Amino acid sequence: MSKGITPRAENYSNWYNDIVIKAGLADHSDVRGCMIIKPYGYAIWENMRDALDKMFKETGHMNAYFPIFVPKSLFEAEEKNAEGFAKECAVVTHYRLKNDPNNEGKLIVDPAAKLEEELVVRPTSEAIIWNSYKKWIQSYRDLPILINQWANVVRWEMRTRLFLRTAEFLWQEGHTAHATKEEAIEETEKMNNVYATFAEEWMGLPVIQGLKSDSERFAGAEETYCIEALMQDGKALQAGTSHFLGQNFAKAFDVKYMNSENKDEYVWATSWGVSTRLIGALIMAHSDDKGLVLPPKLAPYPVVIVPITKTDEGKEKVLAIAKEIQNNLKQKGIQVKIDDADNVRPGFKFAEYELKGVPVRVTIGERDLANNLIEVARRDTNEKETKEVDGASEYLISLLDDIQKNIFDRAKTFRDTNIREANTWEEFENLIEKEGGFVSAHWDGTAETEDEIKAKTKATIRCIPLDNKQEEGTCILSGKPSKERVLFAKAY
Amino acid sequence: MSKGITPRAENYSNWYNDIVIKAGLADHSDVRGCMIIKPYGYAIWENMRDALDKMFKETGHMNAYFPIFVPKSLFEAEEKNAEGFAKECAVVTHYRLKNDPNNEGKLIVDPAAKLEEELVVRPTSEAIIWNSYKKWIQSYRDLPILINQWANVVRWEMRTRLFLRTAEFLWQEGHTAHATKEEAIEETEKMNNVYATFAEEWMGLPVIQGLKSDSERFAGAEETYCIEALMQDGKALQAGTSHFLGQNFAKAFDVKYMNSENKDEYVWATSWGVSTRLIGALIMAHSDDKGLVLPPKLAPYPVVIVPITKTDEGKEKVLAIAKEIQNNLKQKGIQVKIDDADNVRPGFKFAEYELKGVPVRVTIGERDLANNLIEVARRDTNEKETKEVDGASEYLISLLDDIQKNIFDRAKTFRDTNIREANTWEEFENLIEKEGGFVSAHWDGTAETEDEIKAKTKATIRCIPLDNKQEEGTCILSGKPSKERVLFAKAY
Repeated sequence: MSKGITPRAENYSNWYNDIVIKAGLADHSDVRGCMIIKPYGYAIWENMRDALDKMFKETGHMNAYFPIFVPKSLFEAEEKNAEGFAKECAVVTHYRLKNDPNNEGKLIVDPAAKLEEELVVRPTSEAIIWNSYKKWIQSYRDLPILINQWANVVRWEMRTRLFLRTAEFLWQEGHTAHATKEEAIEETEKMNNVYATFAEEWMGLPVIQGLKSDSERFAGAEETYCIEALMQDGKALQAGTSHFLGQNFAKAFDVKYMNSENKDEYVWATSWGVSTRLIGALIMAHSDDKGLVLPPKLAPYPVVIVPITKTDEGKEKVLAIAKEIQNNLKQKGIQVKIDDADNVRPGFKFAEYELKGVPVRVTIGERDLANNLIEVARRDTNEKETKEVDGASEYLISLLDDIQKNIFDRAKTFRDTNIREANTWEEFENLIEKEGGFVSAHWDGTAETEDEIKAKTKATIRCIPLDNKQEEGTCILSGKPSKERVLFAKAY
Repeated sequence: MSKGITPRAENYSNWYNDIVIKAGLADHSDVRGCMIIKPYGYAIWENMRDALDKMFKETGHMNAYFPIFVPKSLFEAEEKNAEGFAKECAVVTHYRLKNDPNNEGKLIVDPAAKLEEELVVRPTSEAIIWNSYKKWIQSYRDLPILINQWANVVRWEMRTRLFLRTAEFLWQEGHTAHATKEEAIEETEKMNNVYATFAEEWMGLPVIQGLKSDSERFAGAEETYCIEALMQDGKALQAGTSHFLGQNFAKAFDVKYMNSENKDEYVWATSWGVSTRLIGALIMAHSDDKGLVLPPKLAPYPVVIVPITKTDEGKEKVLAIAKEIQNNLKQKGIQVKIDDADNVRPGFKFAEYELKGVPVRVTIGERDLANNLIEVARRDTNEKETKEVDGASEYLISLLDDIQKNIFDRAKTFRDTNIREANTWEEFENLIEKEGGFVSAHWDGTAETEDEIKAKTKATIRCIPLDNKQEEGTCILSGKPSKERVLFAKAY
């Protein structure tokens, strides 16, 4: 390709990076590990956010906003959570700069403006939020609290990759408070379900819902539910997590409520989040060597129309048809871009929209139009066809549905053919090394075995699938008895 | 009032604070100067954001996202901007915490994890953004760049007030790059106009568009346009600003483009922003001693229906009517809340929705309904009336329009009667001290006089109104000649 995208087979990692940069999704910044989300990438995030936000509100949640800074004393209150994030915290220690007396025009940190207590830039907001919930919750009548926050968070990761792992990222974090354990678990499961539905119906990304093992659980959680997806290189990607936090944060922040029998009880908690990482998953799940492939439901504009005209009269007719299609689709909430720029050749435009993964490209040529014809090209299969102008809008609407479905089906077929069972260590090692994908295998349930498997193969337990078949077996590494298989994979 | 809201006449500042807290808009946090925006307050912000975002997109802008951190060397590049913000910068100096060896369970900043270069938490993003624009702009074909960002920013203010002035706040910041000075000025004016339209049509807040004096200009700008509003206590509030940045940032970051004659030129810039401060303006412009008064277009739910029933059969009938109204209004995009909670008395509900400023409360009583009647109460005038059930939806829709208009008209009458001319220093001092509001007076155009007026009266130049009448006169303080009047006021 002249676009300069590294083929997947040559170097998958470079292919990914090429697409992110060349399709204009994101850019590196001069701040270590922090990315710039460019307009085309941000428009995808806006579509994701709007769809998720609607689902959150339909399940009874409201948005709120809590401070970006967490005083150190609050941050350390829930010890496991604090321990889990301490190593990657950006810390604010001063609140003022001053002129450098030795270097005109330069600034230095003013040593006189040192904070009494350092502020952690939130890596996640449980601590700051539960410190507020303490004030908001007195009685069972104050429960449940069902709040979500759209925010930026910072985790000082040593190795970063655009979208997949960045020092700062955008996300949503739900934080709920409940009177009973059962209700909190129900909420945890409900939101994991919301994530699964979003991934499959909007992103076209088939996911497996499951539970994390002890080692992979969120710091401070009693149970972590997750959705796991498979990328085209056979590596797994954790696309969302929903945590049952038990009473850990309620105890750390002393949050009690008076129940209907006038007795004080600790409150039960959940938290759940997805992030701009989902854009990385979206890219890696569907795209090809020609560029990005976007599912219509998340594409900034699912249809682009490229007019090809030679005469003014022809241009007028072509644009009239283009605008008619644009209006028809707009009524269904579908954005259509008409690219009638005169200073760019059609071939260049075609390459650009292919690279940007626009699901459908319509070419309306002056000559074709004389025969009442237009050309329709779909990005998922790269097929072109000639269609009558009459009924074009209806056809495009149904074509977008087809593409959405096809993208999901293709990813699901790929995912399903890449779940393999291993019954011996040799089989396991071989599958992880040669085939990739998910390997379903028995495990003795201990962190020691999990660690050893990771050290030997780099594979981790991605999840213990929900509704897992109960089946007697022996652990592939230790040979100890096991009651069910779990899913291993190398992961992002 | 039993709600415990301090009357305005008693203490305006406490009145404001009482409304913010008791209506559930925001809360103080344990982080100095940072607030928590609670769900009801955040829902107002979401409505503001959505309306503004639509206006930005209709004027050709796209959203993007840039890092929250600005390396110190970039921050100090544009000297005036850096100087303007240096004193209120939160600074990240370390990227890791570790266990405190002397205090089990506690954390300390890891001295080994000191950053080579400190990171400023963005007080505004010109520096980080122009550092990127440098890479994005080569030729005139890359211009204009029309980008907006929704983000949190941090300014370490010493005295903070919920919404009006907080250490962290939410805002949008537009950052555009243009080939010519004329185009950049046109953009600056266009966006100030967008703000004025939003303030007047959505917030019901009459504003004066004008230019800032040199002293009040944004640090790094050539010209600052603003919209200024008047609060009920006679103090002015700057509700939005739009800056023509000239080539200051282009020069600081060496951003040039090749023009159509193959010559390098510096790029012209604008930036413009409004923030969660607007919620403070909204509260102070319209509310009364009973609580918040919201304009229908920004209310989380412009209508609340309170059913009052005694029998199951009655309840069924009442709820059927309530849902019909809800559905009818939903089709017009108007949210209706039905509050059929059984465990709360109607009187309590009435007080709650009055406090929360819900524009219209509909009471549907079982007995009234037998006569085909409902009660409609409007929050802006606190008037109640009885209406026929038939046609209720249509009536409510037009009533909301009336209320939106009435709120604006009332604020405009107040504003207009509080712009007064002063022609002598004595008149000026008297008006500022006794009447408040805007005082229109001649000024000699110097920063010295402006400073002296501020020192003597606490009044500042709010703006030099656009399309100001040119009129010979003498400065109220210095007696020197002046060509136009400017607007003074004490301000938030």
